[in-house]
Amino acid sequence: MTAITTDAASAKDRVVIFDTTLRDGEQCPGASMTYEEKLEVAELLEEMGVDVIEAGFPIASQGDFEAVQEIARRAGPDVTIAGLARAISGDISRAAEAVRVAKRPRIHTFVSTSPIHLAHQMKKSEEQVLDIIAATVAQARNLVEDVEWSAMDATRTPIEYLIRCVDAAIKAGATTINLPDTVGYAVPDEYAAMFRAVIERVPNSDKAIFSTHCHDDLGLAVANSLAGVAGGARQIECTINGLGERAGNAALEEIVMAIRTRGDVLPYATGVETTMLTRASKLISAVSAFPVQYNKAIVGRNAFSHESGIHQDGMLKNAETYEIMTPESVGVKATSLVMGKHSGRHAFREKLKDLGYELGDNALEDAFKRFKDLADRKKHVYDEDIEALVGDEVATASETIRLLSLTVIAGTGGPAKAIISLDVDGTHITKEVAGNGPVDATFNAITAIVPHQAKMSLYQVHAVTEGTDAQAEVSVRLEEDGKSVTGRGADPDTMVASAKAYISAVNKIAVKRLRQHAQAASA
Amino acid sequence: MTAITTDAASAKDRVVIFDTTLRDGEQCPGASMTYEEKLEVAELLEEMGVDVIEAGFPIASQGDFEAVQEIARRAGPDVTIAGLARAISGDISRAAEAVRVAKRPRIHTFVSTSPIHLAHQMKKSEEQVLDIIAATVAQARNLVEDVEWSAMDATRTPIEYLIRCVDAAIKAGATTINLPDTVGYAVPDEYAAMFRAVIERVPNSDKAIFSTHCHDDLGLAVANSLAGVAGGARQIECTINGLGERAGNAALEEIVMAIRTRGDVLPYATGVETTMLTRASKLISAVSAFPVQYNKAIVGRNAFSHESGIHQDGMLKNAETYEIMTPESVGVKATSLVMGKHSGRHAFREKLKDLGYELGDNALEDAFKRFKDLADRKKHVYDEDIEALVGDEVATASETIRLLSLTVIAGTGGPAKAIISLDVDGTHITKEVAGNGPVDATFNAITAIVPHQAKMSLYQVHAVTEGTDAQAEVSVRLEEDGKSVTGRGADPDTMVASAKAYISAVNKIAVKRLRQHAQAASA
Repeated sequence: MTAITTDAASAKDRVVIFDTTLRDGEQCPGASMTYEEKLEVAELLEEMGVDVIEAGFPIASQGDFEAVQEIARRAGPDVTIAGLARAISGDISRAAEAVRVAKRPRIHTFVSTSPIHLAHQMKKSEEQVLDIIAATVAQARNLVEDVEWSAMDATRTPIEYLIRCVDAAIKAGATTINLPDTVGYAVPDEYAAMFRAVIERVPNSDKAIFSTHCHDDLGLAVANSLAGVAGGARQIECTINGLGERAGNAALEEIVMAIRTRGDVLPYATGVETTMLTRASKLISAVSAFPVQYNKAIVGRNAFSHESGIHQDGMLKNAETYEIMTPESVGVKATSLVMGKHSGRHAFREKLKDLGYELGDNALEDAFKRFKDLADRKKHVYDEDIEALVGDEVATASETIRLLSLTVIAGTGGPAKAIISLDVDGTHITKEVAGNGPVDATFNAITAIVPHQAKMSLYQVHAVTEGTDAQAEVSVRLEEDGKSVTGRGADPDTMVASAKAYISAVNKIAVKRLRQHAQAASA
Repeated sequence: MTAITTDAASAKDRVVIFDTTLRDGEQCPGASMTYEEKLEVAELLEEMGVDVIEAGFPIASQGDFEAVQEIARRAGPDVTIAGLARAISGDISRAAEAVRVAKRPRIHTFVSTSPIHLAHQMKKSEEQVLDIIAATVAQARNLVEDVEWSAMDATRTPIEYLIRCVDAAIKAGATTINLPDTVGYAVPDEYAAMFRAVIERVPNSDKAIFSTHCHDDLGLAVANSLAGVAGGARQIECTINGLGERAGNAALEEIVMAIRTRGDVLPYATGVETTMLTRASKLISAVSAFPVQYNKAIVGRNAFSHESGIHQDGMLKNAETYEIMTPESVGVKATSLVMGKHSGRHAFREKLKDLGYELGDNALEDAFKRFKDLADRKKHVYDEDIEALVGDEVATASETIRLLSLTVIAGTGGPAKAIISLDVDGTHITKEVAGNGPVDATFNAITAIVPHQAKMSLYQVHAVTEGTDAQAEVSVRLEEDGKSVTGRGADPDTMVASAKAYISAVNKIAVKRLRQHAQAASA
């Protein structure tokens, strides 16, 4: 059946890693990504060896559809691209349309099975839902070979009814059965027991791969996912950084590293290249503007740091004494002084290649200019500085509004003032505007030049490296008509970085509007 | 024996909540707290109903000793105050000296039991370690009634030897036996099995309460803690926000809410007032300057937020459909517009009381002045603004260096410039200094007036509320001689907030130096 699901050559059972960062992660409030960002994330996930990428929810919007379709078009032969669909015929045909250009397309359709969902949300009887499952899975299976069916709120569904639903889905052709803990309610033992009961009692359960999908509302998502596998599941749905609604999904990096580190009691294997986990975490944190907490397992900045104080008596004589996995195994590199103002174009290109960036000639030339400018202003240029600079470069490539100059005067002596010049589609405009503080003044000045109604829902500054001459990286999120965009900017001057980030967000809003106009015109 | 450990009146088994935010949390790199901050945290933990507060590691430094002693002195009759001690006579007597002023004092002493720790770190034989356990626990028990003994790295200790160690500790008088997963290595089933085996096979195991202590390196700390309880433990060691070394400890808020929410399968009870969890999380995040990630379970800002997009078809007809606990149950309050420029002194005092602050007359008057100043500059004043303002007030109460005025000029036109005036012990000093960006210039100017060698290891800005007229709250961490201090400042002007935060940190360094001089003089 689905060739990806087991690896007969391996002594350990292969567990399919199904990443839903672009679907369940992206749908969480404030984390929405642009088209370009989604493609970048998908490319990295594929390179990292994720088995299935759930790329989006094609019926949700034209933008979602286009992103899923383009990800499907670009995907190689080793990765499955899934599109989500409710148990509605239109959803399923739209999902099929989006994913079918992939070499391995999957439709993932779901319906609620718990009494509370049936009564309050669906207003359907159990028998009606069974009919819906049979019809929708059959429709999907007629469109693609690989169909996943999810019993939404499975963990609050009585086992007898759940078994009937799963049986119906498999009979109709589902090749993967997902039993999600939609509300983050399960504890490990009961989650494992549910899988055991369903797999044992559904007659054709060997015809499908069973899948976990856990939310972290009680802090148990990773443990529940592993318990599901112990109960017979062989696919885990998860997201980078545990991104997702409410408390998020099970974190991919924790699951993969738990399986790798505890192979003795978790005799499974995944196809994920663990040394890429840190890079994936950074990318997701940047595009979602969701910071990763310092002590987040695996990918937090403190995850591998030990306090020296209490270990003064020599506790660190052997790294293994306290370290169950090495920082290198998840791709943590020591911060290294890499480049100075005398570094040339060739060295810069090589460094970018090391960091995983391949830029075209024009983009490279622009990035190099920015690098020289930065090296003039900043004593030490680190890998992180270069990454920020390239991120900034990629982000500004398609801008129609550009920053020409900025002067900000702030302090205790009255309202702050910003004098800003922008290039708006070739026209240079300068304004001087006051505000509550320098950031407010700067943003007011930009808005005075490029009027918009968007509300700022996030303003975030972090230092790219340590020390007072660190570059500031600023994220700004703007919301308009229920859609949000995130702009980023990096500069040693926090105010300039803030202006760049705000302008980048305003540019994205302009692009969104154009796209909507185009859609409206073509509809 | 220890009266706190079981609640005979309750149908559910009482689980002791042992909070180690002030010890295991505080010792994590970058999270160290000041004396005043520790007292504030301890007060909140006691009010919240935590059973045991591990207040610090008294032998580690004079500062640690003083904080533990003062927390012990202030503690009421319902909370146990524990001090940590290695298996060294001097550690134990020092811990006893610090905690014995508490109404319920506890000494918590530990020794490594795993082969890798014995071989590489302790260079002792198994028999030697057994003798050490007997001697140190007996010493502690001669000093206080309530003695906890921990088998460091218990999860990597062969069960036969672990049983002998626990037996020795109980014979010597230990009343609590902690079996920590020091390296964050365990999975739930094996952690539960370890407790079952030890409790079943140690002859006097009913003479002690067994305790879990889990680290989150593989994302399993909460699940392991609950598994330990299923295996017979009745104390859980945990921290607010999961603060702690590397990936941190089990998060108190997740454990308490899992037990509360899933009482059907976790038939235990804790004494924690869950509506205080959000406030505790905010306090710890502020004093440690460790941000809580948005999708952190229970206390993340997204923990209770649902995306509207995918729920458009009416999925939210009944809150229970997706919500297993209410935001109110953990103390989340709706952000409310509370005060304006016409609010009076009485209303302000009442609002502070609602928010849990009781200020003395002078502090109240100062805070009220700041509030009026803020209301003049900011249209909407929210609860969070007032909390930031009072936090700022408390932080600046004992300053010898104060900000008089600041002007910053920054932007694209060359080096940024800061003109700053400070009051240093009554003398007014003004300097104009340049820098890479406005923050660098401001910090350089402060350093020019108050020279110091400390290195900045963290600069963090966040908006207190949403919108462009939000107050900025800035945290600055400075490190000197391996010690770190965190300063905070809030102001609608980011640069003024940055200056305040930096000055606050410099003030704390000055206090630390004075304290060390005093110690050196008295030693």
